Amino acid sequence: MILRDKPSPLDLAFALKGSIVPAVVRPVAVVAVAATLLTGLGLRFEVLPVVDPVAVTVFGLALSLFLGFRNNAAYERWWEARKLWGGLLADLRMLAREAELFIADPVLRAAVLRDALAFAHLHRARLREIAADPEALRHAPDLAGTPNPPCAALDRLTARLAAAHRDDGLDGFGARALSQRLAAITLAQAGNERIAGTPLPFVYSLLIYRTIYIYCLLLPVALFAAAGWLTPVIVAIVAYVFLGLAEVSEEMSHPFGTAPNALPLDAICRAMEISLAPHLGEAAPEPLAPVEYLLS
Amino acid sequence: MILRDKPSPLDLAFALKGSIVPAVVRPVAVVAVAATLLTGLGLRFEVLPVVDPVAVTVFGLALSLFLGFRNNAAYERWWEARKLWGGLLADLRMLAREAELFIADPVLRAAVLRDALAFAHLHRARLREIAADPEALRHAPDLAGTPNPPCAALDRLTARLAAAHRDDGLDGFGARALSQRLAAITLAQAGNERIAGTPLPFVYSLLIYRTIYIYCLLLPVALFAAAGWLTPVIVAIVAYVFLGLAEVSEEMSHPFGTAPNALPLDAICRAMEISLAPHLGEAAPEPLAPVEYLLS
Amino acid sequence: MILRDKPSPLDLAFALKGSIVPAVVRPVAVVAVAATLLTGLGLRFEVLPVVDPVAVTVFGLALSLFLGFRNNAAYERWWEARKLWGGLLADLRMLAREAELFIADPVLRAAVLRDALAFAHLHRARLREIAADPEALRHAPDLAGTPNPPCAALDRLTARLAAAHRDDGLDGFGARALSQRLAAITLAQAGNERIAGTPLPFVYSLLIYRTIYIYCLLLPVALFAAAGWLTPVIVAIVAYVFLGLAEVSEEMSHPFGTAPNALPLDAICRAMEISLAPHLGEAAPEPLAPVEYLLS
Amino acid sequence: MILRDKPSPLDLAFALKGSIVPAVVRPVAVVAVAATLLTGLGLRFEVLPVVDPVAVTVFGLALSLFLGFRNNAAYERWWEARKLWGGLLADLRMLAREAELFIADPVLRAAVLRDALAFAHLHRARLREIAADPEALRHAPDLAGTPNPPCAALDRLTARLAAAHRDDGLDGFGARALSQRLAAITLAQAGNERIAGTPLPFVYSLLIYRTIYIYCLLLPVALFAAAGWLTPVIVAIVAYVFLGLAEVSEEMSHPFGTAPNALPLDAICRAMEISLAPHLGEAAPEPLAPVEYLLS
Amino acid sequence: MILRDKPSPLDLAFALKGSIVPAVVRPVAVVAVAATLLTGLGLRFEVLPVVDPVAVTVFGLALSLFLGFRNNAAYERWWEARKLWGGLLADLRMLAREAELFIADPVLRAAVLRDALAFAHLHRARLREIAADPEALRHAPDLAGTPNPPCAALDRLTARLAAAHRDDGLDGFGARALSQRLAAITLAQAGNERIAGTPLPFVYSLLIYRTIYIYCLLLPVALFAAAGWLTPVIVAIVAYVFLGLAEVSEEMSHPFGTAPNALPLDAICRAMEISLAPHLGEAAPEPLAPVEYLLS
Repeated sequence: MILRDKPSPLDLAFALKGSIVPAVVRPVAVVAVAATLLTGLGLRFEVLPVVDPVAVTVFGLALSLFLGFRNNAAYERWWEARKLWGGLLADLRMLAREAELFIADPVLRAAVLRDALAFAHLHRARLREIAADPEALRHAPDLAGTPNPPCAALDRLTARLAAAHRDDGLDGFGARALSQRLAAITLAQAGNERIAGTPLPFVYSLLIYRTIYIYCLLLPVALFAAAGWLTPVIVAIVAYVFLGLAEVSEEMSHPFGTAPNALPLDAICRAMEISLAPHLGEAAPEPLAPVEYLLS
Repeated sequence: MILRDKPSPLDLAFALKGSIVPAVVRPVAVVAVAATLLTGLGLRFEVLPVVDPVAVTVFGLALSLFLGFRNNAAYERWWEARKLWGGLLADLRMLAREAELFIADPVLRAAVLRDALAFAHLHRARLREIAADPEALRHAPDLAGTPNPPCAALDRLTARLAAAHRDDGLDGFGARALSQRLAAITLAQAGNERIAGTPLPFVYSLLIYRTIYIYCLLLPVALFAAAGWLTPVIVAIVAYVFLGLAEVSEEMSHPFGTAPNALPLDAICRAMEISLAPHLGEAAPEPLAPVEYLLS
Repeated sequence: MILRDKPSPLDLAFALKGSIVPAVVRPVAVVAVAATLLTGLGLRFEVLPVVDPVAVTVFGLALSLFLGFRNNAAYERWWEARKLWGGLLADLRMLAREAELFIADPVLRAAVLRDALAFAHLHRARLREIAADPEALRHAPDLAGTPNPPCAALDRLTARLAAAHRDDGLDGFGARALSQRLAAITLAQAGNERIAGTPLPFVYSLLIYRTIYIYCLLLPVALFAAAGWLTPVIVAIVAYVFLGLAEVSEEMSHPFGTAPNALPLDAICRAMEISLAPHLGEAAPEPLAPVEYLLS
Repeated sequence: MILRDKPSPLDLAFALKGSIVPAVVRPVAVVAVAATLLTGLGLRFEVLPVVDPVAVTVFGLALSLFLGFRNNAAYERWWEARKLWGGLLADLRMLAREAELFIADPVLRAAVLRDALAFAHLHRARLREIAADPEALRHAPDLAGTPNPPCAALDRLTARLAAAHRDDGLDGFGARALSQRLAAITLAQAGNERIAGTPLPFVYSLLIYRTIYIYCLLLPVALFAAAGWLTPVIVAIVAYVFLGLAEVSEEMSHPFGTAPNALPLDAICRAMEISLAPHLGEAAPEPLAPVEYLLS
Repeated sequence: MILRDKPSPLDLAFALKGSIVPAVVRPVAVVAVAATLLTGLGLRFEVLPVVDPVAVTVFGLALSLFLGFRNNAAYERWWEARKLWGGLLADLRMLAREAELFIADPVLRAAVLRDALAFAHLHRARLREIAADPEALRHAPDLAGTPNPPCAALDRLTARLAAAHRDDGLDGFGARALSQRLAAITLAQAGNERIAGTPLPFVYSLLIYRTIYIYCLLLPVALFAAAGWLTPVIVAIVAYVFLGLAEVSEEMSHPFGTAPNALPLDAICRAMEISLAPHLGEAAPEPLAPVEYLLS
C-alpha cells in the first residue's frame, strides 16, 4: 500500500511511485502512434470519411459507465479484503481477552494464542502464494505440508480447546465463547479465500480492454476533422485515463498481491503480534513502517 | 468459472474462450446487415431523412444507464451466491470443529460430518438441476426421492443431534452451538434457493433487449449522414458492446448454471471435502484444477 | 412473478405477457399524437422556434439518472422483500429443527409448528390486504378478528413455549434458542410491514412523472428541425422507454401486490408447508407451478 | 409521510399536496426572470457572446451526477431511519415475548413493558425536538428533567431487571435474553441519534446550491442563440427539476422532522402500543390513519 | 463538523465557513489565468487549432463519473466512521447496563466503566494523532507509554473481569455478556483504525488530480471558438466544481482529522460521559455545543 500525503503540485507533475503511469505508458504510446498515423491519413490524404464526433460520444459514455462499474467492483473487493483483515485483528485481540476470561491455565492460553498467530501468518502466505514464508515457517514449522496449512493451525487450536473442555479446563460458557471467536476467524478466512480464488469475471476484462482499444482506434477518425493536429494528443489523454483506470481496477481487484496498491498484510500481521505480545508476556515488536512510501 | 490471467495483446485480438463473442456474433451480424442496408438506402437513394445524431444521444445514454443497472444487479446476484457458498465452506469447517468440542462420541461426529457433506452435494445438484448427480448419490443414496433432498439431509443431521441431546451425549451448550451452525447453513441454503428460484424480473430483460434492437435500428438513420460508410462499422461495434453486456448480465444472473462464467460449485464442494477429511480421519482428495481455463 | 426464459426473437417482437407494454400503451399513444401535432406545426406552419437538440440533452440525462435512482430503490425494495421471505423460509425450517432438539413433547412441537404456519399465511394475507384468505382461515380460524393476526399467532406460539418453560418441558437453552428464532421471524415480519406500509416517497413519483411528460412535450420542439418526420417515432420510443421504466419501478416497489412482477408469496408459503410436513408427520404437498408463466 | 396512490393524470397536472412545487416556486421564478432578462439582452441588444450549448453540457452532467449522489445519500438516511424504527417495533414485540418466557412475575413484566413504551415516546419526542410531548409526559412524567430521557427510561428498565436477577426472579438465561434485546434497542436508538445529530455535510449543500444557481445563470447565455424565446421556458424547467430534486433531498435527509415526507413516528409509536396491549391485558388502541394523505 | 441550517440566499452568496472555496481558490485562480492566456492566444493570434467542443465532452463525462466514484467512496468512509462511533456510544451505554445486571460489586462496576471511558478518550486521541491529549491523560495517566494505549485500557478492563470471574464475582452468563460487549467495542476500534490507517488509494488521487488539470488546460482550446471571451469564466467555474468536489472528497475521506468536516469526536466522547454519569453516581457534564457552527 502506498502511503503518501495529498499530491503536491510537484507530485502531480512528476510522481511515478504509486502512479499508474509506468503500467500504461507502453499501450498509450502505441495508441498515440496509431492515432497520429490515422490523423495524418485523414488530414493529408483525405482517405478517411469525416465522421461527426457525436457519433462516438455515446460509445465513450457507455465505456465510461462500464469502466466505472468494474472499478467499483474492484474497489469493493479491495475494501472488503481490508475489512476482513481488520476483523481478524479484532478477533485475535478478543481471542486473547476471552482466553484470559475463560481459560485458567496460562500454558494453554499461550499455546492457543501462538496457534492463532501461526494461522495469521500461514493465511497471509497462502493468500500471497508464498511457498516458504519465513515468518509462517517460524510460527508453524510442522504445518507446511498439510493441504490447507491455515486450516490445520485452527484445527490444532480447536483440538487444544476440546481437550481442555473434556478435562474441565474450559467450561461450557468458555467453549461457546471461544468457538464463536473461532467461527468469526473461519468466516473471515473463507472470505479472503473467496476474494483470492474468484477473480473479477474474465469476460469483463476481455470486453473492457477490447472496447477501449476499439474506441481509441475509432476516436481519431471521429476527431481529426474537428480537432486537427490536436487529435493524437486528445486520444493519448483519453487512452491514459481509460487504460489507467482499467489498470488500477485490475490491481485493486487483487488485494493480496504484491503490487504497490495491494494490502499491507505484513504490517497487519505485525499489528497482531503487537496486540498479543502483552498476553504472551513478551515485549511488543515495532510496527512496520513504510519504505519509500510503500507499506508491505 | 474462467480462470485466466489479465488478457495479453494476443488474447485481446483472438481469445474466444471466456469471451462473450460466440454468444452475440449472430445478432450482431444481423444488426450489421440491417445497418448496411439502411446506410445504403440513405446514401444512395436518399429516402431516409437526415437526423442530427444528437437526437439519439439521450436514447443511447438512457440505454447505457439501464444496462448498467441490470449488469450491476446481475453481478451482485453472482457475487452474493459466491459469498453464500464461501460461507457454507466456513460453516462446514466450523461444524467439524464444534463437533470436536462438544460431541465426545467419534462415531456420531463422523455421521454428522457425512450428513453435512451429503447436504452440500445434494444442494449443489439441486441448484444445478442435475437429476442424478453421482457425487450426491454416493453421499446420500437414500435421500434422492424426498421432496427437498438437501433439507432431508439436514433434518437427518438434526435427528442425530436430538437423539444425542436426549441421551446426554450432547449438553445444552453443544446443542446451542451446533443448532446455530445449522441455522447458518439453513440460511445460506435458502439464500441460494432464492437466487436460483427468483430470476431477474423478466420485464427488465424484455425492455432491455427491445430497447437495444430499436436503438440499433435507429442508429444508422441518425449516423449515416454524419459517418457515411463507417456507419455499419460503428453500429456493429455499438451492438457488440450493448448486446455483449446484456448477454454477460444474463449469464452472471444465473450463477448456478453451467455457462463458462457460472460459479465453480464442484471445486467448492471438493474444498469442503478437503477441509473435513482430517476430521473424518481420511486422506484429503486433490483440489479440482481448471481444465482449459474452466473450473467447474 | 413471471418465470420465462431469456426472450427469444419472437418474444422480443410479440410477447405481451410479462411485458410493460400494456401498462404504458395509452400514455405513449397520447404523447405520440401530441408529438405528431407539434412536428406538423413546426414543419408545415413554421410557428415553432428552431431549438438546437443539445439544449434538451442535459434534461434527458438528468431524467435518466433520476429514473435510474428510482428504479434502483424500487428494485432494492423488491429484492429485500424477497430476502426477508427467503429468511422466513429458513427460520421456519430451523424452528422445526430446534423444536426437535429442545422440545421433548411431540404434541407441543406440532402445535408450535402449526402456529408458525398460521403466522406465515396470516402475514401473507395481511401484506396482500386479503380480508378473508382461505388458507389463513384454515390455519387460524380464531385469530381473524385480532388487531394484528400474524402477531397474535406468534404471541400464541410464545405462550405455549412459556407454559412449557415453567413446566420444565423446555430448559433454559431451549428457551433461548427458540426465542432467538422467534426474534428472527419477528424482525422479518416488521421488515415486510415496513416495505408494505412505507411506499417510495410520493414526491418522487410526482416529480418523475411530471418531468417525463414535460420532456416528451419539449422533445418534438427540439427535434423536429433535426429529425423531421421521424420526430414522432423517436419521441414515442423515448416515451416508451422512460414511461416503461417508470411503470416497472412503480410495480417493483410494491412487491406484495398482485401485479405480474409481484413476489410469489403463495409459492413461498407452499414451500414452507413442504419443509415442515416431515416434522409434522404429514405428506408434503406439491410445490406450486407457474400458470401461463405466472407464479402467484 | 404522504400516502397517495400512483399519481393520476389530474394529480400530475394539479396536485400540490406532497409535491415539491410550493417549496421551489419562488427560486424558480427568480431564475426564470433572470433568464428572460438575459435572453432579451442576447436577442435584442446582442451584447452576449454566442456560446455553443455543448460548452455547458458537461457542466449540467456533472451537476446531475452530483445531485444524484446527494439524493441517494439523503434517501438512504431516510430509509435507514425507517429501518431502525421498524427494528424497534420488532424489538418491543420480542421484549414482550421474552418477558413472558423468562419473567414469571406479571407485575414486573408490565412495568418492563411500560418502561419500553415510555422509551419509545421519549425517543420520538427527542428526535423531533418536542420539548413537552403529551404522550411522552403521560408515559414517563418523572423523566423529563434528565439529561437524556430515553436513556433514563432504559436505565430504569435495566434497574428493574437487575433487582429481579439478584432476587432470583430472573435467571441467567433470561438476563442474557433481555439484555440482548435491550442492546438491540440501544443500538437502534444510537443509530437514530446519529442520523438526527449528523446532517449531510454542509459543504455539499453549499456546493450544490451554488452550482445550480451558477448553472441556471449560465444556461440562458448558452441557449438563447439555439433556443430563442423558448430559453426562459427551458431554463425554468431545468431549475424546477434541479432545485426540486435538491429540495427533496434536503427534506429526505431530515427523516425525523415534521415536513410532509418525514417519517410517521406517531403512527409507529401507536403500532407499538397496539402490539404491546395484549401483553399488558389492555384493549388495543386504533391505528393512526392519514389525514388528508398525511400520516404523522 | 459544521452545523448550519440549509444555506440562505445570503449564505449562498457569501458563506466561507464550511465552504470549500478557501481550499480551492488558489488552484482555480491559476487555472483561470491559464485559460485566459490560452483564450487570448486563440482569439487574437489564431495559433490554436479550432476543436469541436464535443471532442472533450466524453472526457469531462468520464471525469465526472470518476470524481463521483471517489466522492462516494470518501463519503462512505466518513459515514462508516460515524456509524462506528455511534455504535461505540451504544456499546458503552449497554456495558453500563450489563454491568448493573451481572456484576454485584459497585466498586468493580465503576472501575469497569472508568476503563471504558479511558478507552474512548485514548482511542480518540490515537485516531487524531494527538500525542498528549489532556482528557486521555486524565482518564488513564499510566497507559500513555504502552504500544497501543486504547488496547491496553481494554486489556485492563478484561483483567478485572477475569479476576472477578475466578473469584465468583461474575458468573458464566455475565462473563459471556460482558465479553460479547467487549468484542463489539474491539471490532469498532479495529474498524476505526482501518479507516484511519488505510487511506483511499493514492493512485486514485494522483489520477484524478492529473486528469482535472489536463482537462482544465484542454477545455479552453475546445471552447474558445464556441464561447469566446466567456471561456475563462466557464473554465473557472468548471475548475471550481471539479476541484471543489475533489477537495471535499479528500476531506471526507479523513473523518478523524481536524478539518471542518471531520467527525465531532470530542462531542461524542462527551455524550459517552453523559450517558455513564448516572451509572457512576456522578452529575452529567454539559453536552458540547458548536462554536461558530463548528462542533469539534
